[in-house]
Amino acid sequence: MEHRIQKLSAWLKEQDIQLGFITSSENVFYLTNFNCHPHERLLACLAFPNEEPILVCPQMEEENAKNSGWKYGIISFNDSQDPWAMIKEALAKRNISINRLAIEKEHLLVQRYEVLTNLFPGVQFVAAEEKLHDLRLIKDQEEVRRMQVAAEAADMAVSMIVDRIAEGKTEMDLIAEMEFEMKKKGFSKTSFSTLVLTGANSALPHGNPGTNPIKKGNYVLMDLGFIVDGYCSDITRTVMFGEPSEQQREVYETVLKGQLAAIEASKPGEMLGNVDRAARQIITDAGYGEYFLHRIGHGLGIGIHDYPSLNDQNTGIIKPGMSYTIEPGIYLPNVGGVRIEDDIVITEDGAKILTKFPKELIIL
Amino acid sequence: MEHRIQKLSAWLKEQDIQLGFITSSENVFYLTNFNCHPHERLLACLAFPNEEPILVCPQMEEENAKNSGWKYGIISFNDSQDPWAMIKEALAKRNISINRLAIEKEHLLVQRYEVLTNLFPGVQFVAAEEKLHDLRLIKDQEEVRRMQVAAEAADMAVSMIVDRIAEGKTEMDLIAEMEFEMKKKGFSKTSFSTLVLTGANSALPHGNPGTNPIKKGNYVLMDLGFIVDGYCSDITRTVMFGEPSEQQREVYETVLKGQLAAIEASKPGEMLGNVDRAARQIITDAGYGEYFLHRIGHGLGIGIHDYPSLNDQNTGIIKPGMSYTIEPGIYLPNVGGVRIEDDIVITEDGAKILTKFPKELIIL
Repeated sequence: MEHRIQKLSAWLKEQDIQLGFITSSENVFYLTNFNCHPHERLLACLAFPNEEPILVCPQMEEENAKNSGWKYGIISFNDSQDPWAMIKEALAKRNISINRLAIEKEHLLVQRYEVLTNLFPGVQFVAAEEKLHDLRLIKDQEEVRRMQVAAEAADMAVSMIVDRIAEGKTEMDLIAEMEFEMKKKGFSKTSFSTLVLTGANSALPHGNPGTNPIKKGNYVLMDLGFIVDGYCSDITRTVMFGEPSEQQREVYETVLKGQLAAIEASKPGEMLGNVDRAARQIITDAGYGEYFLHRIGHGLGIGIHDYPSLNDQNTGIIKPGMSYTIEPGIYLPNVGGVRIEDDIVITEDGAKILTKFPKELIIL
Repeated sequence: MEHRIQKLSAWLKEQDIQLGFITSSENVFYLTNFNCHPHERLLACLAFPNEEPILVCPQMEEENAKNSGWKYGIISFNDSQDPWAMIKEALAKRNISINRLAIEKEHLLVQRYEVLTNLFPGVQFVAAEEKLHDLRLIKDQEEVRRMQVAAEAADMAVSMIVDRIAEGKTEMDLIAEMEFEMKKKGFSKTSFSTLVLTGANSALPHGNPGTNPIKKGNYVLMDLGFIVDGYCSDITRTVMFGEPSEQQREVYETVLKGQLAAIEASKPGEMLGNVDRAARQIITDAGYGEYFLHRIGHGLGIGIHDYPSLNDQNTGIIKPGMSYTIEPGIYLPNVGGVRIEDDIVITEDGAKILTKFPKELIIL
C-alpha cells in the first residue's frame, strides 16, 4: 500500500497542500489496507507531502489496523477522548502549520468540516476526490484478482437461484436459499441487498423483493454481488419462468443486443459516453428508449458505485485497468423488466468480462 | 406523515428559516414514509414555512415515492439532469428567496454544502438535527405498531436459535439457520449483523461470531433485530448450554435483576439517567460493577441507535412515546458474558415491553 500513499504525498507536494485528511472507509482502506467502518466515530488517514502518514482510529480498532499491516503512527482514542485535540497536538509536535488542506468533499460531513475550520482557522480546503478517483480508477493486478474472485462468487449465486426457481416459491425464498448456501461456502458479505424480482415487481429498477410467488409467464430478475477481500462484484441476470410472450422475448433480445454493443464499445481510447449510447441507440431503435431508465453502468472496485460513471455525457476516455458494470434494462410498468449486467475490466485489447453466467434467454 | 412535515414547517416559521433541506434517508422516511437509499444520488425533502413540501429523488424512485403515499410535488431527475438547477427553478417559480437554510450538519456532505452555498449566496446555515431528533423522539401509534411487529420477529428469531442449539454447532451455523428461516417468513432485513457468541467470545460486547463450536457449560448469547416497515427491533437473550456453575447462575440472576430494575425505573416524569443507575447499582452491589462496560441502552425507532441515549449522565425526562432498549450486561474476560435486552415504549403507566421472549434462565 505504501506506493499508494507515496502517490498521494507527491500530489500534495505538487499542489502545495500540507495535509491530506482522508476519512472515507473506502479510501482509507485503499491507502492502508485497513478495512474499518467506525460508524459515527472518526477514522482518518493523515497524509503529508514529506513525512510519514498517521492513522486516526478508535482504540478498539487499533489492533485490527496493525494486523492489516499498518507500520506508521496511530492516534487512537476512546469514547471519552477528543481525537481532534490529539490530531492538533500531533501536528504541533511535527511543527506543521496548515494553509491548504485536502479533504474528501464527497464524504466529509458539514459538522466535521466546521470542526476543521475551527482547528485550522483561515485554512483553504481543497477537494482530494479527483486525485483519489484517479488513483483508484486504474486497477492493479491484485485488485483485478480480487474482483475476479468476487465475480465468480456472483456467478455461483445466480446459478444457485436459477437451479431453485420453482412454482410457488417467493422472491424471498430464493434469496434466503442462495444466501444460506453462499454463507456455507464462506461468502457472507453481499455488495448490496440481493434482489430477486418477478412479474410487475421486476419493472422497478430498484424494487423490493417480497413474498410474491413466482408464476408461469413471468420474468425473474436477479441482481446481486459479493465482496471478496474488500472488492465488489455486481451481476444481473433475467430468466423466464414458463414460455415467454412475443413481447417478452423481444424485450429480452433487445436488452441483450444493447448489452453486447456496450461491451463492444468498451475499448481503450474510446469515449466513456459512447458505451451508454451504443446500448441506448439499439434500445431506442427497437421502440423501448423511454423504458431504459438509468445510465448503462457504474465503476466497480472497493465501492459498488466507483468511478467512472457510465452515463452518456461522460467525455472521459476509456483506459486499460478501468473496471465497470454494463447493465442496460427495459422496464415496462405493470408488465415486467429485463436487465442484464456484467462486470468488466478494460485491457489493451478491449473488455475482459469477469462475470460469466450465460446470457442467452433461459426458459425454465 | 403530513402532520410531521407540518411540525417541521412550524419550526421553520418560528426560526425564520425559508427552507428545510432534509437529506438523510432516515429523516426523509420519517417525514414522507418514503424509504429510499439512493447512494450517491440526491434525495431531499424540501420543507417550507408556509408552502407545500417538495420531494427530490432519482427518476427511478419516483414510482416508489408515490406508492409510499407522497401526495405533493416531486422533482425527479435522471442521470443526465442536474437536480440542483431543477430545485433552483422550482424555488424561483414560487418566488422564494432563501436567507436562512436548515440542513442536517451530521449528514450533509461538504460537496453539497458548497453547492447550496453557490445556489444561495450569502445564506446562513442552521442545524436541523435537534428539531428532527425532538420530533422522532416521541413515537406515534403507527410507529409503535411497526416496532411491535419488528419485536415479534426478534422474539421468533431468538426462539429459532434456542431450538437449534446443539453440541458441535458453531455460532455461524446458528446465525445462518435462523436467518434462513426468517427470510422464508418474509423477514430479510436485520437491524444489524446478528450476533451469536459463546464461551469467552460472549464476554466481548461486540464480539465477532465465528466457527467456535457450542460446548457444554457455556453461555450462548444472542443479539439480533429485524427491520419491519422501516422500524428496528433489538433483542438480546443469553441461555446456558449445560448446567451452569454457581457463578454463571449468579451473574445471570444479577443481570436479570438489574434489567427488571431499569424497566421499573422507566416511568414518565423520571430522569433518563436513573434508568442506567438503577441497573448499575444492583450490578455494582453484587460486585460486578466493573464488568458492566456500556450504557444501559439506546433509543430505538427508524434508527437502531436513535435518541435518547440511556447513559447515566442523561438528565432528560422520560416521556410517553419514547422508545428505547434496556440491556445491562456483565462480561467476565475469558469466562463469558450475559446480556439481557428488551425494547420498551413508554406509556402513561410506565414501560410497555415489546420483546416478549422469556427471561428466566433457560438451561439446555
